[in-house]
Amino acid sequence: MDLDALIAGVKDGDRRALSRAITLVESGRADHRAQATALLDAVKDPDRQALRIGLSGTPGVGKSTFIERFGLMLTGQGKRVAVLAVDPSSTRSGGSILGDKTRMEQLSRDANAFIRPSPSQTELGGVARRTREVIALCEAAGFDVVIVETVGVGQSETIVAQMTDIFTLLLAPAGGDELQGVKRGIMEIADLVLVNKADGELKAQANRTCADYAGALRLLRKRDGDPEGFPKALTVSAMDGTGIETAGSEIQELARYRKETGHWDRTRAAQNRHWFNDAVRQGILRHLTRDAATRDQMDDLGAQVAEGGVAPSAAAKQVLDRLFPPGE
Amino acid sequence: MDLDALIAGVKDGDRRALSRAITLVESGRADHRAQATALLDAVKDPDRQALRIGLSGTPGVGKSTFIERFGLMLTGQGKRVAVLAVDPSSTRSGGSILGDKTRMEQLSRDANAFIRPSPSQTELGGVARRTREVIALCEAAGFDVVIVETVGVGQSETIVAQMTDIFTLLLAPAGGDELQGVKRGIMEIADLVLVNKADGELKAQANRTCADYAGALRLLRKRDGDPEGFPKALTVSAMDGTGIETAGSEIQELARYRKETGHWDRTRAAQNRHWFNDAVRQGILRHLTRDAATRDQMDDLGAQVAEGGVAPSAAAKQVLDRLFPPGE
Repeated sequence: MDLDALIAGVKDGDRRALSRAITLVESGRADHRAQATALLDAVKDPDRQALRIGLSGTPGVGKSTFIERFGLMLTGQGKRVAVLAVDPSSTRSGGSILGDKTRMEQLSRDANAFIRPSPSQTELGGVARRTREVIALCEAAGFDVVIVETVGVGQSETIVAQMTDIFTLLLAPAGGDELQGVKRGIMEIADLVLVNKADGELKAQANRTCADYAGALRLLRKRDGDPEGFPKALTVSAMDGTGIETAGSEIQELARYRKETGHWDRTRAAQNRHWFNDAVRQGILRHLTRDAATRDQMDDLGAQVAEGGVAPSAAAKQVLDRLFPPGE
Repeated sequence: MDLDALIAGVKDGDRRALSRAITLVESGRADHRAQATALLDAVKDPDRQALRIGLSGTPGVGKSTFIERFGLMLTGQGKRVAVLAVDPSSTRSGGSILGDKTRMEQLSRDANAFIRPSPSQTELGGVARRTREVIALCEAAGFDVVIVETVGVGQSETIVAQMTDIFTLLLAPAGGDELQGVKRGIMEIADLVLVNKADGELKAQANRTCADYAGALRLLRKRDGDPEGFPKALTVSAMDGTGIETAGSEIQELARYRKETGHWDRTRAAQNRHWFNDAVRQGILRHLTRDAATRDQMDDLGAQVAEGGVAPSAAAKQVLDRLFPPGE
């Protein structure tokens, strides 16, 4: 592969080049990884910043319909939109919750939209790091908005929040105890809660659900760098389009406010540092687990520690003494 | 110091030996650390398990009055109670939020109670690891209940939740927007929310606050291993004692349920593994940061990464290539 041609292609916003670059970044091969690292460093351009939006929601809340409607609104405003997905449990659909592009039929045919399925890796940490790099590629290719979709499983929301500027939670109308369906931790990171399906028979219920969440959000402390009123709960209908423009302008307003206050730049800097430290840590741990003796010792001591047979600090000392012999 | 005598003293529940053991565990000296590690491994006894309760609350909610009242109820039931504190920002009071034992005057004079101030370390991670080890010492010394107090700053709650069996959040009555005072993330880990000061003029307001939090808690998904109705919100009065016994029996009930379902053992095993992995990771990182070349390179690259001058993965590669030269 001609790396220089690929770099130039991505910078020109060429879709085929971008697709090939993403495939390179997602590859697990060591030689591809080295090329990917060089590519990412070569294409980065501090002057090209997309608005990165994280979107979470359990299956059935209408994420695809919402992204289609929201994405078409943005392309209608002349913006270029990329849609990515983080889905660690996606083996069910051949490695991708977005594999079926018919989910977003109109948007996938839009020349200003780019939809990329989730890579078929099984380890969440690996998927996450690749997704962060794919976001960077989309930014370098000149996209204005990057939407990162995730389903409400495990820690994927926290990880996506670490690589996006604004985090949105999409919910369906629900009554009473059904409200318990929101996974603990997600409300904590949401900037905007959108209650979908505010149309037809569900409209009144959507309004009540929205009021419930607005009340719950008021119980949480306002975060540094946020304007009054955020995090906010709104109703939308991805089906008939109600509230989609309002959701879009609230996101733009929050982004504008954060840029003005310097919060945006500080967050991006902190995120970059986070991913740098994460990459060093992962690299060290990967090096250690490749070492069979360390791996066996960690497994063995881990089981003993779990059973209470050895104290955690004493077990750790055994590993560390073998890695870095005292007196060396 | 005679380590064998210290080990025997701790196992006998001797208070002076326990105090000396804690001082040893809290010491930063390398030779003390080696002795502490040996001590911790020697005293551990899987048959001695205290009920470990985490208690969080911002200053002014009445934590000391609550602990005093709650602790005296427990010692009145013939139980031995230890009270510890995690407070990373405690330099203001000479290194301890519990330094002033007059805060819990009656309890501190109780022969069945043991109150230990927070160590005066500045780094939260270090304080946390030491606190986990002090809990282990108190368990080995035969205490029935260990209460770990923390103020609502930073990540201390998450860390305390990783070393306790049941996590309790103490709140003061509040109206309307004041409710925003709860730090994001704390509600997520609380098993029990206690609204204090449900007495005199504040009683009605405490009931309303409690109802608000009960409503908010219902919006969160029930956690695996919890019985119906948890997490729960209750009103208490540390001043006149109202609700203290109910809070105690709810905690006992939750503990009993979790023991019966195996959740208790699984959580403890997972916590032990967590602290083992944490100790190995910290040990490796400590070894690396002691190395001046690595430290300088990380600082330098971290600043470049934050500014966007170099991609996180490319920066990490530079560090890793120096630590583990390719081809070695």
